[in-house]
Amino acid sequence: MTETNKQPALETFPNKYPGRPYAVEMVYPEFTSVCPKTGLPDFGEIRIKYIPDKLCVELKSLKLYLHSYRNEGIFYETVVNKILDDIVSVCNPREIEVIGNFNPRGGITTTVTAKHKK
Amino acid sequence: MTETNKQPALETFPNKYPGRPYAVEMVYPEFTSVCPKTGLPDFGEIRIKYIPDKLCVELKSLKLYLHSYRNEGIFYETVVNKILDDIVSVCNPREIEVIGNFNPRGGITTTVTAKHKK
Amino acid sequence: MTETNKQPALETFPNKYPGRPYAVEMVYPEFTSVCPKTGLPDFGEIRIKYIPDKLCVELKSLKLYLHSYRNEGIFYETVVNKILDDIVSVCNPREIEVIGNFNPRGGITTTVTAKHKK
Amino acid sequence: MTETNKQPALETFPNKYPGRPYAVEMVYPEFTSVCPKTGLPDFGEIRIKYIPDKLCVELKSLKLYLHSYRNEGIFYETVVNKILDDIVSVCNPREIEVIGNFNPRGGITTTVTAKHKK
Amino acid sequence: MTETNKQPALETFPNKYPGRPYAVEMVYPEFTSVCPKTGLPDFGEIRIKYIPDKLCVELKSLKLYLHSYRNEGIFYETVVNKILDDIVSVCNPREIEVIGNFNPRGGITTTVTAKHKK
Amino acid sequence: MTETNKQPALETFPNKYPGRPYAVEMVYPEFTSVCPKTGLPDFGEIRIKYIPDKLCVELKSLKLYLHSYRNEGIFYETVVNKILDDIVSVCNPREIEVIGNFNPRGGITTTVTAKHKK
Amino acid sequence: MTETNKQPALETFPNKYPGRPYAVEMVYPEFTSVCPKTGLPDFGEIRIKYIPDKLCVELKSLKLYLHSYRNEGIFYETVVNKILDDIVSVCNPREIEVIGNFNPRGGITTTVTAKHKK
Amino acid sequence: MTETNKQPALETFPNKYPGRPYAVEMVYPEFTSVCPKTGLPDFGEIRIKYIPDKLCVELKSLKLYLHSYRNEGIFYETVVNKILDDIVSVCNPREIEVIGNFNPRGGITTTVTAKHKK
Amino acid sequence: MTETNKQPALETFPNKYPGRPYAVEMVYPEFTSVCPKTGLPDFGEIRIKYIPDKLCVELKSLKLYLHSYRNEGIFYETVVNKILDDIVSVCNPREIEVIGNFNPRGGITTTVTAKHKK
Amino acid sequence: MTETNKQPALETFPNKYPGRPYAVEMVYPEFTSVCPKTGLPDFGEIRIKYIPDKLCVELKSLKLYLHSYRNEGIFYETVVNKILDDIVSVCNPREIEVIGNFNPRGGITTTVTAKHKK
Repeated sequence: MTETNKQPALETFPNKYPGRPYAVEMVYPEFTSVCPKTGLPDFGEIRIKYIPDKLCVELKSLKLYLHSYRNEGIFYETVVNKILDDIVSVCNPREIEVIGNFNPRGGITTTVTAKHKK
Repeated sequence: MTETNKQPALETFPNKYPGRPYAVEMVYPEFTSVCPKTGLPDFGEIRIKYIPDKLCVELKSLKLYLHSYRNEGIFYETVVNKILDDIVSVCNPREIEVIGNFNPRGGITTTVTAKHKK
Repeated sequence: MTETNKQPALETFPNKYPGRPYAVEMVYPEFTSVCPKTGLPDFGEIRIKYIPDKLCVELKSLKLYLHSYRNEGIFYETVVNKILDDIVSVCNPREIEVIGNFNPRGGITTTVTAKHKK
Repeated sequence: MTETNKQPALETFPNKYPGRPYAVEMVYPEFTSVCPKTGLPDFGEIRIKYIPDKLCVELKSLKLYLHSYRNEGIFYETVVNKILDDIVSVCNPREIEVIGNFNPRGGITTTVTAKHKK
Repeated sequence: MTETNKQPALETFPNKYPGRPYAVEMVYPEFTSVCPKTGLPDFGEIRIKYIPDKLCVELKSLKLYLHSYRNEGIFYETVVNKILDDIVSVCNPREIEVIGNFNPRGGITTTVTAKHKK
Repeated sequence: MTETNKQPALETFPNKYPGRPYAVEMVYPEFTSVCPKTGLPDFGEIRIKYIPDKLCVELKSLKLYLHSYRNEGIFYETVVNKILDDIVSVCNPREIEVIGNFNPRGGITTTVTAKHKK
Repeated sequence: MTETNKQPALETFPNKYPGRPYAVEMVYPEFTSVCPKTGLPDFGEIRIKYIPDKLCVELKSLKLYLHSYRNEGIFYETVVNKILDDIVSVCNPREIEVIGNFNPRGGITTTVTAKHKK
Repeated sequence: MTETNKQPALETFPNKYPGRPYAVEMVYPEFTSVCPKTGLPDFGEIRIKYIPDKLCVELKSLKLYLHSYRNEGIFYETVVNKILDDIVSVCNPREIEVIGNFNPRGGITTTVTAKHKK
Repeated sequence: MTETNKQPALETFPNKYPGRPYAVEMVYPEFTSVCPKTGLPDFGEIRIKYIPDKLCVELKSLKLYLHSYRNEGIFYETVVNKILDDIVSVCNPREIEVIGNFNPRGGITTTVTAKHKK
Repeated sequence: MTETNKQPALETFPNKYPGRPYAVEMVYPEFTSVCPKTGLPDFGEIRIKYIPDKLCVELKSLKLYLHSYRNEGIFYETVVNKILDDIVSVCNPREIEVIGNFNPRGGITTTVTAKHKK
């Protein structure tokens, strides 16, 4: 994210079942950002799997947060790791995995997978 | 569930084979509730797998129980955990898993999985 | 089964290879019985896997036995466990598993799985 | 097999690589015999997997051997175990498995699986 | 192979990366030879997986070598084991597996699998 | 690569998340080079999986690097191992695997797989 | 239908759009009756396509009507033509087609198709 | 629709290309209403194909309009014809077809198709 | 397009085969624009089929032209008809069809199809 | 083709059955050329269907002819029409169709189809 370009905040709501380690998986096939080398648009699917602790990620704010990458120049590797870090920073889940599966550019398809455990 | 809006009771019948740990799986692809943020309808599939102990869940009451979410504003995470808790409270099975697989909203598909073991 | 409604006997024939633990799997996709709550017909597939000991289940008698559920009011859980028990009582196999996979009723599909080991 | 009805002999040829435990799998989808209860034809697929020792089963004699069941009244369980025994008796393999997968009769599909190890 | 019928030599080239145990898999779906019992043509797929040591099998010579079985009367079991032995004798790989998957003859499909490890 | 024919340099960019061992997979289905025996074109898919350390491979330079094999005469085994070595030499990843899956030549399909670990 | 065995009446409701020739298609895959020759159960799918005139067929009464064949001995050809006649007699549609697609018996699958036009 | 229960208005916007007869198809797989006989929920897919004239149907108002059937007791035949009439009354298209494909109830799947031409 | 926001020009090149009515089809699955009602991003696939006359559409300029919708608020119906008009205005083909197949919004999937003939 | 870069001649052989209008279809999935705008490689599948008259296209010369596009900068539309013209000029078939189906560039997949009839 560029300095001057604030992303919408990821919101959370209290997990009503914090004692039970249950799993949430969210798939967003309409991710788009901009290639920092060529300025051309990139497209891909973002998959987020996590086990909430005290807080859950609120879906509508997640949608707006993911939309905010639309006009940012950013590498695939940074997209996936930054989403991971941003979710960890707002809701600190027990475990989380983020997978970005990006459409071919120059004939090359790229997948990036990152994980975090408390 | 709102305070004034009583859900139909989940009924049970005696398990005639309590000594044998056998498995029951029920799949309901027509689940619908209401988003607590937007007031718009949500849709999904609820999958319940359990090993009965002294009691089995009666199918018709389960259907009416699942219908009762139709006009409730409730998060996906709460739907799945509440169904789990409600079944446990009426028939206390040896083991149970509830999976909610919800249709895309804002382009995002969500799956929630919760388990309980006696 | 109602008291006055005798089921056709499951017949057996001697296993000519009792010393060898081999497997037999029989699948019957045309099972039908009656719902004990509503009186409406139920439909499903019955799958029987067993390792015979001294006796094998004779196929034609099995067919007539399965037909006999046609007009009986019976829960899915009981169907599966009763078939298991009835086969065990006539041929006492080394191992047996019975799976009933029933068509949707009220939008809910149900699968019941029971096992027995000597 | 009826007493007076001689089956064609299964022939073998010397395994040129007896020191190496390699695998042979033969699939015959055109098996047919006769139901000993009803006299009606049965159909199925026979699958033979073995690791040869000193001798291999010759394919043409196997074909004629399998053809010889055409007009025999015989249970599925016996078909599979007899093929197993007959192959063991002529070539004594290191290991062998025979699977018979039979078409529906009275709506019931049957699979029989038998194994032998030296 | 008949004595008077010389097969084309399998050629090799030096493995430029002998210190790294990497894998090579070659699949040839157009194998054909002759049945030694009936004189009729057989067809199948030959699959060769190996980890080269000092030498790699050269592809064009492999093609000509596999072509040379075209008019030879030879059992499936011998085909697979002979290919294994011939490759081992010219390039002595760290590991090798050869699988022959032959088309139905007399309604019977046959698969032969052989392995060798240094 | 011939001596006089310089390949475009593989470029890298700093890994912003060097402390986290995450995975990157890139698939390029449009690889083409020239057979060193026949001079005819070869085609295949190159798959690169790696866990970056301090540096990531930049995608556009990778595309140009892979294009540079277009008119080179080179064995499949060398293609795969050389790509592995070239990526290791510019970004020294924690782990890397390169798979080349080449189209049939003379009817033979070839797959080469090589790995490296720091 | 046997004389003494009254079928449940097919009910209708007024077509609110009689001036528009629109189409209704109903598919019932759980049809079952009894073979009049052997007394064994038959199974099949009934497909009803019609263009209503003044009246529509009410779905719940159709379900009970179709259930009433469950224990009747009746030929496939009669099933299809009788359903056609019974619907015509209660609602006299502009056009109607009834298709019965029955499960294999003795290895034979049967389809019966009948039409009526005002 | 009950008298006291106003549906949200279908909105339109001016067709910027009224001289060109182009086609618009909208598919809504999450339609739900209530069975007027049993009070139980019905589910289905509504498909609307039309050629606009002076006005186009606005998508968000269509969504809210379709949501408004959620708690209405209404026959399938009426659902489809009423949607057709309501769209015709607000935007009077050159041609329109509405198809309702409803989930099984009592084992019966129903499809209703209605058309209108200026 | 907003007044102040100039789109990149669609470029053309001379059709070297103007006497032959041949077909060109271009499919772009990564189209994205913005909903004029909600400001949220829309996604879809644009399919262009045309028969060139004196000029062909140049592919790279088409890509940049399609990218220029990325941040524009525009109805689906306008997107498809405007692309049609813009291509017609630069190269005046013998025939052209443009199809926009847009991802679900509010659960509704929309397809718009427009054609033009000289 | 550049002036100085002669393509290998397409060769023919006499059609032995000129009186019979039979069909020949040839598919070449490994076509590659160079984009005249960017200098980057293009990839695609060329499909040639023709009904020969007095002469047939010789396959090996066709392969070398198609290889000759490898390093040429040429538009897709020209590739397909030029192949059509070149085949017509050497063997003048009764009918011919050439289809070029090219891999995505800038996210856009292109298909060009040209036909010729005597």
